[in-house]
Amino acid sequence: MSSPATEPSATKPRSGTQGPASVLTPQREDFPRWYQEVLAKAEMAENGPVRGTIVIRPYGYSIWERMQENVDRRIKQAGASNAYFPLFIPQSYLQREAEHVEGFSPELAVVTHAGGDRLEEPIVVRPTSETVVGEYMAKWVQSYRDLPLLLNQWANVVRWELRPRLFLRTSEFLWQEGHTAHGTKEEAAAYARQIHLDVYRSFLTDIAAIPVLVGHKTPRERFAGAINTLTCEAMMADGKALQIATSHELGQNFARAFGIDFLGQDGQRHLAWTTSWGSSTRMVGGLVMAHGDDRGLRIPPRLAPIQVVVVAVRNDQAVSDAVEKLVSALSQSGVRAISDIREGSFGRRVTEWELKGIPLRLEIGPRDLGEGRATIVRRDLPADVAKSQISLQEIPQAVKGILEEIQAALYDQALARQLSLSTQVDSVGEAIQAAEKGFAYIPKNLVDEAAEEEMAASAVTVRCVQRPDGSLADSEDEEGLVCVVARSY
Amino acid sequence: MSSPATEPSATKPRSGTQGPASVLTPQREDFPRWYQEVLAKAEMAENGPVRGTIVIRPYGYSIWERMQENVDRRIKQAGASNAYFPLFIPQSYLQREAEHVEGFSPELAVVTHAGGDRLEEPIVVRPTSETVVGEYMAKWVQSYRDLPLLLNQWANVVRWELRPRLFLRTSEFLWQEGHTAHGTKEEAAAYARQIHLDVYRSFLTDIAAIPVLVGHKTPRERFAGAINTLTCEAMMADGKALQIATSHELGQNFARAFGIDFLGQDGQRHLAWTTSWGSSTRMVGGLVMAHGDDRGLRIPPRLAPIQVVVVAVRNDQAVSDAVEKLVSALSQSGVRAISDIREGSFGRRVTEWELKGIPLRLEIGPRDLGEGRATIVRRDLPADVAKSQISLQEIPQAVKGILEEIQAALYDQALARQLSLSTQVDSVGEAIQAAEKGFAYIPKNLVDEAAEEEMAASAVTVRCVQRPDGSLADSEDEEGLVCVVARSY
Repeated sequence: MSSPATEPSATKPRSGTQGPASVLTPQREDFPRWYQEVLAKAEMAENGPVRGTIVIRPYGYSIWERMQENVDRRIKQAGASNAYFPLFIPQSYLQREAEHVEGFSPELAVVTHAGGDRLEEPIVVRPTSETVVGEYMAKWVQSYRDLPLLLNQWANVVRWELRPRLFLRTSEFLWQEGHTAHGTKEEAAAYARQIHLDVYRSFLTDIAAIPVLVGHKTPRERFAGAINTLTCEAMMADGKALQIATSHELGQNFARAFGIDFLGQDGQRHLAWTTSWGSSTRMVGGLVMAHGDDRGLRIPPRLAPIQVVVVAVRNDQAVSDAVEKLVSALSQSGVRAISDIREGSFGRRVTEWELKGIPLRLEIGPRDLGEGRATIVRRDLPADVAKSQISLQEIPQAVKGILEEIQAALYDQALARQLSLSTQVDSVGEAIQAAEKGFAYIPKNLVDEAAEEEMAASAVTVRCVQRPDGSLADSEDEEGLVCVVARSY
Repeated sequence: MSSPATEPSATKPRSGTQGPASVLTPQREDFPRWYQEVLAKAEMAENGPVRGTIVIRPYGYSIWERMQENVDRRIKQAGASNAYFPLFIPQSYLQREAEHVEGFSPELAVVTHAGGDRLEEPIVVRPTSETVVGEYMAKWVQSYRDLPLLLNQWANVVRWELRPRLFLRTSEFLWQEGHTAHGTKEEAAAYARQIHLDVYRSFLTDIAAIPVLVGHKTPRERFAGAINTLTCEAMMADGKALQIATSHELGQNFARAFGIDFLGQDGQRHLAWTTSWGSSTRMVGGLVMAHGDDRGLRIPPRLAPIQVVVVAVRNDQAVSDAVEKLVSALSQSGVRAISDIREGSFGRRVTEWELKGIPLRLEIGPRDLGEGRATIVRRDLPADVAKSQISLQEIPQAVKGILEEIQAALYDQALARQLSLSTQVDSVGEAIQAAEKGFAYIPKNLVDEAAEEEMAASAVTVRCVQRPDGSLADSEDEEGLVCVVARSY
């Protein structure tokens, strides 16, 4: 049985398949290039024809679908209902909230012609939907009985990007955006926090196996129109931070701009307090950069569309039958398993599954079959220790446990990296230096606006503000808070 | 216990709730108005701020989500994978297929400015994605081994509408669009037919309880760029036809325009044969118009987000406890059940559930509780025969069977109406007359281009061409085919 490393790479790959993994640029050599290559070779995504847009290929989309499914279930558990608001927003809506329009104007795509005619009022393609949702909330919220109003939508949004990067920063992206209205500031804050922790943080840590830091943004980094922005930040394999999901308290800014008010139990009219919160296809990019290695993707088992691939070492009837039988047994026990009984080089097929990051690979050849065993290969471990033997009979009951081990291992590896590349510092200068390779933790009282300006000149920013124990602060003014500082995507 | 009909309508509805059902304009009086009112009062949807757009409210969206889930499962069973292609298409792509651009040009929305600048090439907001998918299929299809390529996407599309109507014809709508490439004309035709029957027709009849006619379109009514268009047509409550889903053989038109060719087993390059097929939020409108009555919606149980509502006749602790216990028992047996233990008029609450078309309602009051029974009310039956008594103990095991009876009854009622409003005719004049109230079946050899022109002058069209037994023709040239002629949405 040949391992991918010994597979001769001189043979021409057949059309539609990938060459050996060694064609990936090593991460240490050029991380952005590795990222681009792994997305192409694992058939995740490509650039769209219009600058900055993305084509998400079936394998990439199947990962997004599983993210959606899990996040959607959590959102519904938090009491919100899905709805759908239009792609097109009158330009005038954007202008009603001053900070909001200032924040988004440079990124807007504008429709000026439709149905063959020039439009009287230009239409904006939504960059986010606070304004249009605000307009309807104002109609739907009349009395305190109509609160809280908890809405979410899965949609595409458009923000024109000058430096696009697949999944991370694309001119069009897919996301969910939640929009809620509440009777009091406290309820709004509590709900934003609930979504942030129970939906985003839990999904990212428990399912995507990505350790995340939670905290709030400094005023400089807040969402345009928010009074508080909570963020989930994670360290990627190159030590840079990725902002993965954000939850905003919008105060009464949008309620004032759109007239979202209600008759209170006191018989008086009050402005509502609104929130918004979002997570996007950027999570797919985060998954790739948090777990991927020089051989390709590594998808955590709980998220993986394919958890186990059973590979026939040779295209042989008895082997193929055994492979299909095993896949069927695994499927029946609730494991997402597929077979690979294709013709063509075994090594090249294995390379494809490694590139695609399938958590667990079982290999069966004629000799294995005779001996009633298979080779089991864990994608979370280095190639030299990833393989072991397992008896065919044991497989169905062993696999679930191994998948959970892989899930935990990927989280642990990411956390170990994060900890090893994090530094406590006592000055802005040290923070900038530490951010060269990872995260710097600096007391918040050392970081004023001038310090943020100074860091920004080195492309370093405050990713979030949190308590020393990593929990969310109750307020901006709390004593002893810490800033996490890093370079970022 | 008061029935909705006897509920006093003089009391002012509390904010955010609906008035009694009698405020719906009867269907016979003004069907379009009934449609508009029922969508508003059942909180299904509203007009968006930009002309022709739609806001889908949570209840409407929850129905669409269940449609999506079922259709998506069927599409995957047919072997297609989901992917995502960009919203924005270069204008030049549209122009590559002559009929296609001619068909869609009048409906396009065009982005001319983005990121603060005027664009060099205007960008079209996708009206459908054959062109952009074609561009990528040309890259992904190289050899016969890459075929068939079976893709689907869930997306929004934009077609500027001069006479918009919620769900039926909106400037932006949500849909799935499948796009496939095959090695031969026969395989492409067979796949389009498989999708049409196993996905669309089966979903519509088995789940949405809508009897549909299948057939192909005349050249006049074909999709722009297709060589054959299959359609599912259904009769709405006013006797008009709704085209609910279509599947197109695109021949080699798009393969030629975008260069989708492959190396065959014969060592030669061949153009691929492509198909596309779609179903949209229009299905929600079809559901409303196929099943709704003067009291509101009637949602078939297999599709209903809420299958059973258990209503406390009075807000009383013992009653509320019994209601919640019943909902919990129903939920555990796999029934989608909710409780209504709200304060406020019983009659008005009942009216709301009738408007929303919940298939089955259970009512429990203090006296019922004492006698160990509930009132069970079927939404599919006329109000005067819809109610009966059932013992509380029997409910959990009886409900599933009753829901299936309701599912069948809704289908049967729609089919009976369709049959009673269908007429066999022998001339174009008779067809036009018969289409005043329903469907006319006319031998295809009587319908030439001039006849279609004549009918069009009376807003009557050939909805589909089929065999006399209702099955799909193998070819346009088959003898003895029949045209189904009607007015339509």
